Order: sequence, then structure tokens, then C-alpha cells
Amino acid sequence: MSERIHATYWLETGVDPRTAAETIAGEQSSGTFIALPNETPELKARSGARVERLEVLDHSEAPSLAGGAESKCYTQCTLELSWPIENFGPSLPNLMSTIAGNLFELRQVSGLRLTGLRLPDSFAKAYPGPAFGIEGTRKLSGVQHGPLIGTIIKPSVGLSPHETAEQVKALVAGGIDFIKDDELQADGSHCPFDERVRAVMRVVNDHAERTGKKVMVAFNVTGDLDQMKRRHDLVLEQGGTCVMAVLNSIGLVGMHELRKHSQLPIHAHRAGWGYLTRSEALGWDYAPWQMLWRLAGADHLHVNGLRNKFSESDESVIAAARAVLSPVMESAPLTAMPVFSSGQTGLQAADTYAAIGCADLIHTAGGGIFGHPGGVAAGVEALREAWVAAMEGVPLARHAERSPALKAALEFWK
Amino acid sequence: MSERIHATYWLETGVDPRTAAETIAGEQSSGTFIALPNETPELKARSGARVERLEVLDHSEAPSLAGGAESKCYTQCTLELSWPIENFGPSLPNLMSTIAGNLFELRQVSGLRLTGLRLPDSFAKAYPGPAFGIEGTRKLSGVQHGPLIGTIIKPSVGLSPHETAEQVKALVAGGIDFIKDDELQADGSHCPFDERVRAVMRVVNDHAERTGKKVMVAFNVTGDLDQMKRRHDLVLEQGGTCVMAVLNSIGLVGMHELRKHSQLPIHAHRAGWGYLTRSEALGWDYAPWQMLWRLAGADHLHVNGLRNKFSESDESVIAAARAVLSPVMESAPLTAMPVFSSGQTGLQAADTYAAIGCADLIHTAGGGIFGHPGGVAAGVEALREAWVAAMEGVPLARHAERSPALKAALEFWK
Repeated sequence: MSERIHATYWLETGVDPRTAAETIAGEQSSGTFIALPNETPELKARSGARVERLEVLDHSEAPSLAGGAESKCYTQCTLELSWPIENFGPSLPNLMSTIAGNLFELRQVSGLRLTGLRLPDSFAKAYPGPAFGIEGTRKLSGVQHGPLIGTIIKPSVGLSPHETAEQVKALVAGGIDFIKDDELQADGSHCPFDERVRAVMRVVNDHAERTGKKVMVAFNVTGDLDQMKRRHDLVLEQGGTCVMAVLNSIGLVGMHELRKHSQLPIHAHRAGWGYLTRSEALGWDYAPWQMLWRLAGADHLHVNGLRNKFSESDESVIAAARAVLSPVMESAPLTAMPVFSSGQTGLQAADTYAAIGCADLIHTAGGGIFGHPGGVAAGVEALREAWVAAMEGVPLARHAERSPALKAALEFWK
Repeated sequence: MSERIHATYWLETGVDPRTAAETIAGEQSSGTFIALPNETPELKARSGARVERLEVLDHSEAPSLAGGAESKCYTQCTLELSWPIENFGPSLPNLMSTIAGNLFELRQVSGLRLTGLRLPDSFAKAYPGPAFGIEGTRKLSGVQHGPLIGTIIKPSVGLSPHETAEQVKALVAGGIDFIKDDELQADGSHCPFDERVRAVMRVVNDHAERTGKKVMVAFNVTGDLDQMKRRHDLVLEQGGTCVMAVLNSIGLVGMHELRKHSQLPIHAHRAGWGYLTRSEALGWDYAPWQMLWRLAGADHLHVNGLRNKFSESDESVIAAARAVLSPVMESAPLTAMPVFSSGQTGLQAADTYAAIGCADLIHTAGGGIFGHPGGVAAGVEALREAWVAAMEGVPLARHAERSPALKAALEFWK
């Protein structure tokens, strides 16, 4: 039997849901808005998208999005469509055009959101997925248990390479596992990429020689393809162990090419995710979206954090992290490491651990580390100890009795 | 004086607009949600984004998007920010991270839409823009005046290479100027790219040898980079004159690489545009979005069509087309050709011409051509004559007295 691609949507429509479903299926395969004499039953059976499931959830009097067919009643439903792989082959870019193409603009649609994706094996044969994932990241960072404790260079932009290296110096001396560039930090003339990498890696390598611990630094290589390759090569040459790329800024082709070239884990930043997801009636859930990028090669994927400073709910953050930790398909797990960030401290450790059931993650904190009255080292230790408590199921306050750093942190973490 | 990048937004916020504006400017440059001791006034003056303009437009009691700070009053405003080029250099991917990164997720935001973009000259030095544009497209297609009359192969998927070529045969015999693959048609096993190109180009080349007119066919090369390059090379080798790529599916890096490699015009498809734009309170206007893709090399850009079958208003279509025809910057116009499609017939010609003031465009019709009782040739002639009437300012009915094909078309165009 032919392989099929399955996509699930939350759909709202002002017309009969069955009509809307068939219209979407047609628009995204062999049909169009007028009946075609050469769309024969044989052709449609072979190439048409199929409505696999249509379940009415609710009704409303007003449409979620403007521009659709006017109606007195709008119906919300779960819609599952499937396509034969023969339509376009195991190709991520063409998968994107098919599952998330023109359908959002249809007049029969007053809300449409891609909520799920199930891909056939041939995608895993065509795309390598993450080269390092959880295991490779643990090996390179030397963190065998618990989360990688991380942070982001701040201010995001504005520091010189020397000032950046000074901040890294305090962090590595403080025992941090992971540091990342901000997504806004690229190769500006005030902080050129090459100078920054050389200055930072001097600090990281010095520390590694003295202590045996090489801190993983995700340098933002985002740029045109030649730039990304050249920047990756410099990081590698300087002994670095990670590169970062902004997914929405480079696109699927950029990510796939970076993956083919890279000898280092790829820390995938989702900047711009807000415009894809923040309207509840439009766009993408994280589960199907991150699947595409894992196939393309993302080793680490951002998922925001519990009680974050952005607008995302905890429920959504947890669903995102679970998606990143779930197999892409049975035959090819391609598991990546979720990255928690934004307003994070040790106070979120236990809930995070409880929600995802493991500590295969990167937990980054800024103020939660730098704000510690005992300095960066105490800040790192406090966050690490909060995770020990979480994994051992010990209440934070009790565990703090064994850790002065954690005890002090509990005074200022809010 | 330093070059600056200017972006304009429609912003809705539940907090004081000035606070929201400063928060966005901070988040997208040197600030973060906590005060940083090392974000010195000097650093901020050098690297901070600047609030250039903030104009209150209106107020509402309810927020457009969920998840933001709760309030009794939400304020809508126009916000203009600027960044110094030194922050990230003339790089399209990093520009994307900066103007359309994390800001959409901020709690201070209950609506945010990127409405305008003004770039400094250095972007035009770093990116070549369209290699062919209007002039190159006219030269290759042999259409010196008026729009290129075009159509799309339908059904979108399902036809074999032979069946596709048969449809092309009828179209070129009928005098069409331009044909495009559907965005769903790529390289599926039922209609492999290579076979399709060879079969179609045999027909196109035969016709060109006999008549001197080589119809422009936009073959959809969308795929991974090696695939796109190889497919482009085959189209070129077979005498083809255009390739098509789906922008959201390949991303900025994919487009830039295709542009560097391509010796043919790039027909840029915007499938997926709906999820970027359909929520009025979120995402992108077309004007800033298409600017990025023109810099990256798009020769033709889809703008939907007047009275289209999708949910987009005529006002939005006209704004999009005008944006594509406007210079990217004074020093580098990089003008591309707008492509009108979706439910189009000759009835939209006069209004389209009046709205954009020129006929430097591709006008594609499906049913409007194939549905003509006199056949494809009459359908093409009718659409072309409708444009002659539009450009001469003659009412359609009067012009139809000189054109039997147009006269017959007026009976079935609705």
C-alpha cells in the first residue's frame, strides 16, 4: 500500500464542514474552485487528498478570522487529511507547500490551525535528522545527568568581543554548562563574529585545559549559506562544540544545508514563532512545526519556559517540550533536546521535571543566575541543586538546607 | 552618520503605549525584561533600537490576541522603530530575526503586525535582487506590451508528464504567453520533474521553432538545494525560460542560493502566505515581506487578484501589487513583476490597470480561458483583448464589438 502523509487541523468554517473539508482537500491536491473535466475519478482516487476524519467540536456566532464566507453559524472541527507520497515525494519543502500552503486563505475557512503531522518512513530515509541530539550533546558538554545549566549573553547586542569574552569568563568560572549568543547577535561591525568566537573560545579552551570541562557555546551562525558554513568552520577550528541558527530566518533549505555541512550540534532558535502561532485560530501548533526542523537536523529546539515572561501558557510550553522529546516516527525517533528559557529560575525545575518526566534538556536562566547575591558560581550551583531536588523529589526548601547557594537563591528567585 | 533600518508596526497593547514601545525596542536590541547593569547609556545609545514614532490610533475594551497583559483598555498605535546597521550588518536572515523575531510573543503586546520597512543602501550592495525583473521577463517571453497572459496547469497534481504536455500543447497553440506548474506539483513519482520538463519543453520548443514565440513556463523547482540546482539546470538545458520556487517552503537562504545559481527568472510563489497575514492583528503586511524576497532575487511575485476566490480584499491585493512595483530603495529599485491569479477573467483587467497604473504584470486565468466556448485560443484572445480595452480606456462591451472572442467571453465570464 502506498505511503500517506497525515495532517490534522483545527478548522472553523462558515459553510457546511463537510464541504469545507472537501474544498481544503481539493485545493491542496487535484481540485480547484471550479469543476475540472480532466479531474477524473481515477485521477482523484490516485492523487486527491482524502478527508480521513471530521469531528465537530463546537459552534459560534462570530468568525475567528475576517474575510471568510459570511454565515450565521460557524462550526469548529477537527479535520484530518491525508495525501499519497506519490504527489510530491519525501521532500520537506514540498511537504510544507502541501500541508501549509494556500489553504489558510480559503473563503470557506474562518480559522485554520495545523495541529498534528504523521509522516511515512521515507522522510526519515531522505533526511538525516539531528546528528547529535541528546546523547551527542551530553557527550560534548560532559554533562551526563540532569539538565545542561545554561545562560544567554546579555545585553543581546552591544558588547564588544572582549566584553563578551569577559562575561563568558565569569560564567565558565562559575561552572556553567552551556552559553548561547542572543539571536540578535550575528556579525555586526561592533562585535564581528570571528573576533567574538576567537575571544570566547580562548576563555573556554583555557578553562577546559585547566579543569577538563569544556563549556558548550552556541555561536549564532545565522546568515547566508556561505557565511554559515564559514562561521561553522571557524567555530570548529577554534574548538567550539555548537552552532546556533534561527530557523525562520534561514528556512528549511538553509537548515538542511547547514546540517549537511555541520560537524557540530545545531542549536535551533525559533525567533518569529510568535507570528506563526499567537492567533489561536490560525497558523501552527509547535508539534508539527518542530517535526519538520528535526528532520532537517535541529539538535536543540526552543520551547520557552514555565511561567515565562512572554504570552505563552504553561500548557503550551509543556506540549511543545513533550513534542520535542517524542519520536518523529517509530522507525526514526530523531529526538532533540528541548531548551527552556525566559524568566527561568530553580523555582520552575520541579514543575518542569514533573511535566516532561525527564531532565534531557537545557535550562537557561539570566537573572536567575546573574542575580544571585553570591555571584555567578552560586547562581549556577543554585539552579543545578534545584534540579537535583526536582529529580530526587525533595521539596526545594528542604534541599536548600544542604545547599547554601540554593538557600540564598530562594531569597531572590520570584 | 550610521545607516539605520526602519520598521513600522501596527501595535495593540494593554499597557502604556510608550512602555510597550520601549519594551519592544529593548527586546529586539540591547534590553531584556530585567534591568542589566552592563546595559550602559553608551551601549544603549550605540546599539539600542530607537522609538522613532508612536501615534495612538484608537482604543478598545478587548484584546485582539490572547495571552497578553490584562487590561481594561487596549490601545492601537503606529510604531516605528529603527536599528543601527552595526547591530547585525546587511544580512537578510539577521534582518528577519531583528524586525520579526521574539517581539510578537511579548506580554505587553495584544496585537502586532509589521507594516513597513525601509532599508539602507548597504542591503542593495549585499544582495543582487531580481536578475530579470520586468524587462528581462518581457525579453524572454517576447511580450513587449501589455500583461503576459498566463495560466496554471490543472489539475494541480495527478496528470502524467504526457498529459501535462498535452495540456501545454493546447495552450501554446492557443497563443498563451505564460504557463506555470501548480505549487503542489514538484517531483512526485507519478509526474517526475525531469520527464515533465522534457515532455513540456518538446512542445514549447516545437512551437517556438514554427512560430518564433517561446512560451514561458515556470517549472516548480522547489526542493532541497541540490535538487533545485539540478532541476534549474535541466530546465535551462531544455531551453526553458523560467523556474518557480515556493518562498515559505525554501526560506531566505534557499532563495538566495537559487538566485546565485539561476540563469533564469525566478517565479516566486507565496503559498503559506495566509498563515503569515490572515489574522489582522498579527504577522505581516505584504509590503515589507515581499521586499525581503525581492532583495533575495524574486523576479515575479504573487499578489492574488481582484475579486479573487480567496479571503483577501481588493484593497489588500492592490496594496500588494503596488508594493511589488515600487522601488525597494531609491538607489536600487529591484522592481519585480506582480502575478495576478485566482478567479481571474478579462472582467478584472480594467480595474487592475486602473489600480496599478501599468500593465507590467502576469495575469493568469484558468476557467476564464479554458471555459471559453470557442476553445483555448479564443479564451486567450479574449483576455488579451480585455487588456487592450483596459489600456485604451475603452469600455469592454464596446471593445467586444471589434473582437468576437471577447464578445463570446462576456457571455460566460462572471
